[in-house]
Amino acid sequence: MSERLDRQFAFLNEADRLKSVLRATTLVDGSRPENSGEHSWHLSLYAMVLADHAPADVAIDRVIRMLILHDLVKIDVGDVPIHSANGAAHASADTVAAEQRAADRIFGLLPPDLAASFRALWDEFEAAETPDAVFAKSLDRVQPVMANLQSGGGTWATYNVTFDQLESRVGAKIARGAPRLWEWVREKARPWFD
Amino acid sequence: MSERLDRQFAFLNEADRLKSVLRATTLVDGSRPENSGEHSWHLSLYAMVLADHAPADVAIDRVIRMLILHDLVKIDVGDVPIHSANGAAHASADTVAAEQRAADRIFGLLPPDLAASFRALWDEFEAAETPDAVFAKSLDRVQPVMANLQSGGGTWATYNVTFDQLESRVGAKIARGAPRLWEWVREKARPWFD
Repeated sequence: MSERLDRQFAFLNEADRLKSVLRATTLVDGSRPENSGEHSWHLSLYAMVLADHAPADVAIDRVIRMLILHDLVKIDVGDVPIHSANGAAHASADTVAAEQRAADRIFGLLPPDLAASFRALWDEFEAAETPDAVFAKSLDRVQPVMANLQSGGGTWATYNVTFDQLESRVGAKIARGAPRLWEWVREKARPWFD
Repeated sequence: MSERLDRQFAFLNEADRLKSVLRATTLVDGSRPENSGEHSWHLSLYAMVLADHAPADVAIDRVIRMLILHDLVKIDVGDVPIHSANGAAHASADTVAAEQRAADRIFGLLPPDLAASFRALWDEFEAAETPDAVFAKSLDRVQPVMANLQSGGGTWATYNVTFDQLESRVGAKIARGAPRLWEWVREKARPWFD
């Protein structure tokens, strides 16, 4: 029991470092960059609030768990903004490989049963094929759009993003998991680009 | 549908302010105070990792939801450290009343069905009577202990806390929801006070 708790707390202490990983997106008030720890909390709240916009086969409690875990690999890799390098860096082969190594190391701190179940949930999120993962990915794309709208442009201004780029890099992924949500968000975002 | 989404996002945008509520506890590396948003994320991860130390009648997914919501009232009230005012401020009648008003305002931003269900979950957490709430409260007490241990004393040094005070203000509440967890944590914390 004691060795199990040692491993559980080694993981929980290491996870604390996610609070020091900065994102390109700012807080809604524009005061400072958001970190990946508080971003993960905000997303889990998004899942609770927007559950009624998920398809009927989505299990929200699994979505919440995925979102709690989804960014832990950034402790090693850092956050790669979706609009950086003209949209090419976020899902590059190098980034994907680095995140796999990070997942090995970080989930590997846990007792084997938890390491396996957390890794399976993270792999499912990354693969973006199951209804739960597709909806979780939608929320991960919606939240920065809302932050940019509130803060007066945010990463759209930083990276000179066009509305077409927003539609292809972000909108398509929101619409895949939550079509009605993207309709509403799209209408709110459109005027900023005029 | 559009009015419903307006209310859902009004709440989610307001919730962003929790990322600017600072706690007395620092990050594990001692670099800066922790904020209540990232604290809430870390606690929900605690629930996922430490689920096997909960009594058998605890529903972990409800605990996770409680922990995601538990600090939102701090947006209006601020965080009242457990060891401040010699332990007397944290659960004072004034603090409790202010948190009730905050809950009215903040959950009241949501559509009525969500406002009612979120408020019920927060009320349950605050009452600390059900097995889910008692376990959630245990985790809320364990996490700052671990941060203090890693950062070299943290709020124990700030507020000149004795080991007896730690046992009565913190340990008793951890032990109530997770007795084996407090045994392990107690053994780790004891030497700091010698």
